[in-house]
Amino acid sequence: MLAAVCHGARDVRIEPRPDRALAPDEVRVAVAYGGICGSDLHYYHRGAVGDFFVREPLTLGHEVSGVVVESGAAVRGLAPGTKAALDPARPCLTCHYCRAGRANLCTNMLFLGSAGRFPHVQGGFVQHLVLRQDQIVPVPADTDLLRLSVAEPLSVGLHAVNRAGPLLGKRVLVTGSGPIGLLTARAARFAGAAEVVSTDVEDAPLAVAAGRMGATRTINVARDAQALAEYEVDGGYFDVALEVSGAPPALASLFKVIRRGGRIVQVGMLPPGTAPVPVNVLQTREIEFVGAFRANDEFRRAVDLIVAGAIDVAPILSGTFPLADAVAALERAGDRTKVVKLHLAINEDHR
Amino acid sequence: MLAAVCHGARDVRIEPRPDRALAPDEVRVAVAYGGICGSDLHYYHRGAVGDFFVREPLTLGHEVSGVVVESGAAVRGLAPGTKAALDPARPCLTCHYCRAGRANLCTNMLFLGSAGRFPHVQGGFVQHLVLRQDQIVPVPADTDLLRLSVAEPLSVGLHAVNRAGPLLGKRVLVTGSGPIGLLTARAARFAGAAEVVSTDVEDAPLAVAAGRMGATRTINVARDAQALAEYEVDGGYFDVALEVSGAPPALASLFKVIRRGGRIVQVGMLPPGTAPVPVNVLQTREIEFVGAFRANDEFRRAVDLIVAGAIDVAPILSGTFPLADAVAALERAGDRTKVVKLHLAINEDHR
Amino acid sequence: MLAAVCHGARDVRIEPRPDRALAPDEVRVAVAYGGICGSDLHYYHRGAVGDFFVREPLTLGHEVSGVVVESGAAVRGLAPGTKAALDPARPCLTCHYCRAGRANLCTNMLFLGSAGRFPHVQGGFVQHLVLRQDQIVPVPADTDLLRLSVAEPLSVGLHAVNRAGPLLGKRVLVTGSGPIGLLTARAARFAGAAEVVSTDVEDAPLAVAAGRMGATRTINVARDAQALAEYEVDGGYFDVALEVSGAPPALASLFKVIRRGGRIVQVGMLPPGTAPVPVNVLQTREIEFVGAFRANDEFRRAVDLIVAGAIDVAPILSGTFPLADAVAALERAGDRTKVVKLHLAINEDHR
Amino acid sequence: MLAAVCHGARDVRIEPRPDRALAPDEVRVAVAYGGICGSDLHYYHRGAVGDFFVREPLTLGHEVSGVVVESGAAVRGLAPGTKAALDPARPCLTCHYCRAGRANLCTNMLFLGSAGRFPHVQGGFVQHLVLRQDQIVPVPADTDLLRLSVAEPLSVGLHAVNRAGPLLGKRVLVTGSGPIGLLTARAARFAGAAEVVSTDVEDAPLAVAAGRMGATRTINVARDAQALAEYEVDGGYFDVALEVSGAPPALASLFKVIRRGGRIVQVGMLPPGTAPVPVNVLQTREIEFVGAFRANDEFRRAVDLIVAGAIDVAPILSGTFPLADAVAALERAGDRTKVVKLHLAINEDHR
Repeated sequence: MLAAVCHGARDVRIEPRPDRALAPDEVRVAVAYGGICGSDLHYYHRGAVGDFFVREPLTLGHEVSGVVVESGAAVRGLAPGTKAALDPARPCLTCHYCRAGRANLCTNMLFLGSAGRFPHVQGGFVQHLVLRQDQIVPVPADTDLLRLSVAEPLSVGLHAVNRAGPLLGKRVLVTGSGPIGLLTARAARFAGAAEVVSTDVEDAPLAVAAGRMGATRTINVARDAQALAEYEVDGGYFDVALEVSGAPPALASLFKVIRRGGRIVQVGMLPPGTAPVPVNVLQTREIEFVGAFRANDEFRRAVDLIVAGAIDVAPILSGTFPLADAVAALERAGDRTKVVKLHLAINEDHR
Repeated sequence: MLAAVCHGARDVRIEPRPDRALAPDEVRVAVAYGGICGSDLHYYHRGAVGDFFVREPLTLGHEVSGVVVESGAAVRGLAPGTKAALDPARPCLTCHYCRAGRANLCTNMLFLGSAGRFPHVQGGFVQHLVLRQDQIVPVPADTDLLRLSVAEPLSVGLHAVNRAGPLLGKRVLVTGSGPIGLLTARAARFAGAAEVVSTDVEDAPLAVAAGRMGATRTINVARDAQALAEYEVDGGYFDVALEVSGAPPALASLFKVIRRGGRIVQVGMLPPGTAPVPVNVLQTREIEFVGAFRANDEFRRAVDLIVAGAIDVAPILSGTFPLADAVAALERAGDRTKVVKLHLAINEDHR
Repeated sequence: MLAAVCHGARDVRIEPRPDRALAPDEVRVAVAYGGICGSDLHYYHRGAVGDFFVREPLTLGHEVSGVVVESGAAVRGLAPGTKAALDPARPCLTCHYCRAGRANLCTNMLFLGSAGRFPHVQGGFVQHLVLRQDQIVPVPADTDLLRLSVAEPLSVGLHAVNRAGPLLGKRVLVTGSGPIGLLTARAARFAGAAEVVSTDVEDAPLAVAAGRMGATRTINVARDAQALAEYEVDGGYFDVALEVSGAPPALASLFKVIRRGGRIVQVGMLPPGTAPVPVNVLQTREIEFVGAFRANDEFRRAVDLIVAGAIDVAPILSGTFPLADAVAALERAGDRTKVVKLHLAINEDHR
Repeated sequence: MLAAVCHGARDVRIEPRPDRALAPDEVRVAVAYGGICGSDLHYYHRGAVGDFFVREPLTLGHEVSGVVVESGAAVRGLAPGTKAALDPARPCLTCHYCRAGRANLCTNMLFLGSAGRFPHVQGGFVQHLVLRQDQIVPVPADTDLLRLSVAEPLSVGLHAVNRAGPLLGKRVLVTGSGPIGLLTARAARFAGAAEVVSTDVEDAPLAVAAGRMGATRTINVARDAQALAEYEVDGGYFDVALEVSGAPPALASLFKVIRRGGRIVQVGMLPPGTAPVPVNVLQTREIEFVGAFRANDEFRRAVDLIVAGAIDVAPILSGTFPLADAVAALERAGDRTKVVKLHLAINEDHR
């Protein structure tokens, strides 16, 4: 059973990993596709994400789809051969946060492909993967498994939009147009935003944003630093801003273009430490600055929307590499002028 | 200045009405188009809406668009010739409800074309109309005034959807596919519903619903009484139901197909008196049954969406009659097998 | 191991019940006190609650406190002798509702002492009880276990109040002053209501309401049918109404005294079938009519508030009978002129 | 007609100010008492609040109560001699924010005693004051006007609590125990918080907090820098934190003691510019950081609560000076070791 395993910075190897027995509530799946996420790139380039360093070999990947191979004794309704979206989150179900419907904040979370705990939680860039039954979302047999593997990042965009509150008829700004930014823009438009303005520092992703991902206008803030300023009129134009870039200057710019009482959702991960925030503006204008982290029920909603074709994720698909070429894929995935999101085809016979 | 004036049941006359002077905060507009609403039909056929009887001649109409003619001394920024959407609601701005952001519940509301107060509030099927400045929403010069006159009923659909809470990725049922039902379905889909099932007892409006108004499935409940029953599975399939028909049997059916914790929004007006509700089901399943009445800020959102072309209201437009033929239009408007919504062209030179 | 077991209408026997082995995540407790709830009375008098008939012997009781006896292999931190509040709810943790933070709506709920499923879920009027670890809420050693057994009904009152939305400075009506009504009134006042008006058809519980349970005014609606009418002024006085009586006339009265946009929370269980509701009033006034069923996180909040002495439940305690006298207690518990809530002392040595 | 007028830093004079005629919707009141607020102290000591400098003589004061003297032609129901709470806010009623129920964010607000606009809005430390009808909240004739003048700062505390969301059974931290901090703590406890921990750098206000203003524990963070650290357990203890001190270090400390998904409400005004915020913590823990500014409907709720005696504001009353001694009062008001809030008695014959 082969996997793409990170041993440290710039040290990812395709190597065998042992299989393991199933618990009664677990399911073994053959992974079909795995999308390369920004966190996979951080592990590859730095051997770490934020403060979480790779301390033992770590199989990467958490944006995965696949096919059921085998089920534990207590599992019902998942016949071998069933196609499925694979939820990378395995919350404890019993802590305060899980019981409050916020399992994304679970203090005992096991999330695929993460060095946030030790031992690490091994990821999904592996031929056979064992998951708990509730992580398996079965889909119709004619579902495209490549697109389905986008359910996880789409769920992040949906969750960000849910954190923003109702968007019907509202004016929305999305700063940052990487894969999550694009899917967030798409989700915002899908949720009824009247306008979605997307920003980035590269033209290529903005072209995707404008094309079919929901942006009604795009701004390259590297080239046109003044364009956002026109939204400072009347003390701020946007009802909602979704900050996906993780760049402190992008965050700072939002407090000038957001309406009083508006909401800023922080989706992108900033570096550890602090960033300057105009707190007196936040206070006197009653701005709401809230975090968005991963997703909850939105994973199933994302699956539904992809399966039904209500949201087409094809515009962010930039190509697929075989598992054996994972390193080449990781190298290429960082080139934002050419690539939005790359995938690994992990089991060639499961599509 | 001619108007379509109701003198009682089946007694609508096209007759002159006097103009009046402007207060400093008022604006005179030439009305371009007026949509015929269900309440106009009730006045025409019964001389009453619910318990509100016509007790003096009443100019009908409240779905109107037009062009600015003249402004009061305190009005700024509304030059003669400006095209505008016309908000039929003139709330007092100072009562508890207005101050709470719920002007649609204002206890001193003046709403165009309504016998709910005495003297009645005269309506918009008149060549010149005087409104308070905040009722005038200016639009670009190339705006189609016929479509713009749909802003008011669209705002009712948007408001109903806002009362339903966030719909992103949710399953929605809309019972009743008259103009408001169709616009509510469209608003629900626009707000991100994954599925919108529309019902009616006629095929013609369902064809419109399925065509371009947002329904992902339609059900003729007169012909196929069992189709809804398949949604009773698992104790209820829909996250949200919007009851627009105003028919007690439609309401009763919802409690069987709504999920626990789901929300039923009553948009349609039922006859005065009571209707049977399974309160023990509502209690043990924590269903939320809430009313939706007219609109607030949604009027401006509706204007934005129509002007931007984000929501195309053309599918509900069934034809236009000159003001002089208002009675013929009122006669024809009640034929649901052929008509969704008819309009009066009130000033032929303003389009 | 003795229990109070219902074999049918008016047939409750104190008889031995077998103990059972612990699963790894389970805990055995010695029950100290059990409060007699309205549902226990229904089982005793009718052999049924609503449509749920006793089809096999059913140990009654779900308002219980106790002391840890023994823990399963996977349980941590619950030493024998630990006093604990006992949550009667054992939700599945994995269904849609559990994952959404609404375990009270769980479709696979095991709730102590209920004939709602078959086999029935045996209840807490038993000397030794086996619960899942998360049902055990440990408390300090000096906690009064009799008062602690009120945590469950208090949690129902807290949940009802949470369903009502923020109450700070608001005007609240509570119809029905049985134990749940009294605790709901207390919770409403504790949550910051400016006024709490409690009603009933008996004077005795109203005296308790006025005494120390939070009511700022009480009304005996059997004797003074017109007193509520003074709240019809201005189209309704109360911001929120909590309907705890389960009486259709009480429900009907609320729509006349609730403000526009106000919220009615149905807490009491009405008979199966429908009740008449003025739906046109609900719609045009945007009233929100919502159900409240049992509790979630409020159980732990109730324990905290009892332990800290923030809410004193003593005024509703009407006396304690030994387990052996359960039938006498059940007989007496129905006399609302003398009794608010009776308890069974189940293990005399645990207090 | 005498007033306390600020001409610049440390230049407040008791001098005559002209009266003016009433508009039809205005009311003239004789001011009874005026509370000295932190902003009055800033004007006195610096000639400015934040960036707003005194550019013309400015009558100070906005926490006022009084008695009706005379009403405009359109005013109903306010007979001369009527006691009243006086709302310092005069919003425009028609802007986007006013229409949305958030008049505190009105872009055209006239707020008593503020240099935020030019010409300045003259304040309430004056013998006769002209207000718009809706600023007058009549109270019973036996109301204590000194306590009633606390309605405005109490409304700020109530509003802060409303911005925090429901507090029933929750754990709340209030940083800063000046008058607003104390009233916020009182409001939080009144709203059902299970615990309220108040902090300050002085012992005197903490003694008031613990005494009768709602704190269940107090911490002097100047003397005991480690006490808050015990709340860092489990990643944060408090459900809600209300930051009233306006001190950046207090704000920074909150992100360590707040639960995941918790809410931080910024009530205190920080200096212009930015403060460091751990945005990555906010994002990954989905913390909500929101502003609270003045009040809306809470002013009337505050009046109700004071009149009914539900909230006793007496513990924050530190003494009363005649208007003629306003400078002495302003000097003394800044001594936090001895004073919570001082008042001016403006018309000696109205109490």
